[in-house]
Amino acid sequence: MTESQSGQRYRIAVDAMGGDNAPAETVRGALDAAEQCGVDVLLVGDSDALKPLLPSSLPDSLRVVPSDGVISEDDQPLEALRAKPRASIAVAAGLVKEGMADAYVTMGSTGAAMAAGVVALGCLEGVDRPALGGPFLGLAPRTVLLDLGTSVDNRPSQLLSYGVLGSVLATVFLGIEEPRVALLSVGSEESKGNRQVREAHQLFRESGLHFIGNVEGVDVPLGRADVVVCDGFVGNILMKFAEGLGMAVVEYLQSSAGGRDGSEAGPLLQKLSLLTNYVEHMGGGPLLGLNGVGIVGHGRSKAASVRAGIEMARTSLERDLVGMMSRELARVRRQVKDDQERES
Amino acid sequence: MTESQSGQRYRIAVDAMGGDNAPAETVRGALDAAEQCGVDVLLVGDSDALKPLLPSSLPDSLRVVPSDGVISEDDQPLEALRAKPRASIAVAAGLVKEGMADAYVTMGSTGAAMAAGVVALGCLEGVDRPALGGPFLGLAPRTVLLDLGTSVDNRPSQLLSYGVLGSVLATVFLGIEEPRVALLSVGSEESKGNRQVREAHQLFRESGLHFIGNVEGVDVPLGRADVVVCDGFVGNILMKFAEGLGMAVVEYLQSSAGGRDGSEAGPLLQKLSLLTNYVEHMGGGPLLGLNGVGIVGHGRSKAASVRAGIEMARTSLERDLVGMMSRELARVRRQVKDDQERES
Repeated sequence: MTESQSGQRYRIAVDAMGGDNAPAETVRGALDAAEQCGVDVLLVGDSDALKPLLPSSLPDSLRVVPSDGVISEDDQPLEALRAKPRASIAVAAGLVKEGMADAYVTMGSTGAAMAAGVVALGCLEGVDRPALGGPFLGLAPRTVLLDLGTSVDNRPSQLLSYGVLGSVLATVFLGIEEPRVALLSVGSEESKGNRQVREAHQLFRESGLHFIGNVEGVDVPLGRADVVVCDGFVGNILMKFAEGLGMAVVEYLQSSAGGRDGSEAGPLLQKLSLLTNYVEHMGGGPLLGLNGVGIVGHGRSKAASVRAGIEMARTSLERDLVGMMSRELARVRRQVKDDQERES
Repeated sequence: MTESQSGQRYRIAVDAMGGDNAPAETVRGALDAAEQCGVDVLLVGDSDALKPLLPSSLPDSLRVVPSDGVISEDDQPLEALRAKPRASIAVAAGLVKEGMADAYVTMGSTGAAMAAGVVALGCLEGVDRPALGGPFLGLAPRTVLLDLGTSVDNRPSQLLSYGVLGSVLATVFLGIEEPRVALLSVGSEESKGNRQVREAHQLFRESGLHFIGNVEGVDVPLGRADVVVCDGFVGNILMKFAEGLGMAVVEYLQSSAGGRDGSEAGPLLQKLSLLTNYVEHMGGGPLLGLNGVGIVGHGRSKAASVRAGIEMARTSLERDLVGMMSRELARVRRQVKDDQERES
């Protein structure tokens, strides 16, 4: 496919400087996408760094937009944005704000991607801060978990917003018509959980989402819900715990297989390792709740993942991810308000 | 060994009525322990239920103490204790209070075991509510995690108490001299985490524990700390998530092995399943922070696990687990107070 399904050619701003393998791999991925994915790429980066990596004759669908500097994982995002207003991620998000691009894509600092997006585009109504989420376990490839760690100490109403965002994500990217939404807790009963979850439970019941109640930790890998909502603190720990558990299982199986069947088990073990690893499995995702399309890939991304991120931006635009989320957030807000008025 | 290491014969009250396999398996386990573990067993249960299960001539080391009724997992613990003051768990904990027994052991409701223990014996100073914890992952058999879900919304000072209790547990049961204690969070930096963990971080630093800072989810299965402290909400979700992940991995490997090597892989898979399952791996543990020895085993326990629970009670008594915890809690309390006075 060389054109988008809607026939429209989307313009994607790509942060060439962000990520462990930037700019070499980001440039390769961006070139591939510009040539093969039916999008126009605005490649944002330091001209001196990009020049040696680009062919002498650029494809029509790729244009370089100069920037100055990069914000790394170690920087405090908001401070760094103030100190480096021309940093690649700031310029990329700014292009969307100015209407020069339809979406931005980065493999750089998640915090900076989020801060730059919020500064440039703001959040959808009812969202305090964008979330990250998706099918984080290869073993449960159709179970969306969010938030994966972009914010902690979420208010119950923020958890409800996650439920909405995750539900739309599951519909748009996984094709699940009426996703089963659940709150992650320590027991299935409504009374089980910490204060945050118990308060959120009531909101979810009133939301009109297809809320199936609380699920427990055991239910996540077994795919017993389509969307599992939790505080970013819990989600981040779970995601990384799964990664560590996968590593430990593989180590264990390798040492157990020992002399016996090591060679045959190799590919299986490698696959298994991928199946417990969000980073390898998903690569990245949209900033959920941002008033615009911003895609954050993993810092370790190589060219293929950069290209996949650009394709994810295109798909998000084609399917109007942000519009759907905005409308669904508004619908749920009205519903909860109506319910509360009826009760009072 | 038929006597305890200290030469003292401990008296263990065993709740014969609690657990999925009670009283048949609890009685079998108690009989085994009375005959082989160098302890005196006070078997607490409904006389009618126990009679057909006991030999006509009891060993000298076993005595039946009658009780009336049982508190199940479905009961609200405190209400049930009020409604059934002669329930087996209440009588068992009461025997310790009255000085008739040195410890109690149950495979019944954790909530009831805890409530009965707190009512009868109280908590150690500085502990709001007893915790449960231990090496919950077979893959990281020397990493203690707590709390596993006995209470949620813990205050930072309560997390510090968990650190102390876990540290003593690791020393007493795992023989680790100076356990590395860590807080579970979403980043290793002190500034990372939710409000609860960030506040606790400061307390841990002042505690005199061997505090190594925050660890992330990935570090838990890799055994990068000896004691990992978290809110019961997080610990319970992690424990159950590991169980679910183990099940999903085994399912995946079974279906992948398919026709190929299914028979050989069988035992390995079974082992792997155990290694991700707290219940199968640990079976149970002491109520940490209780002012006395109370052991809660899993509801599914069979005779061997019941006996193991009784042995754990004996070991806890021999090694003065509660005394050590009490002294260490007091030491840490003084230390934190001194530090805070020095700063002010």
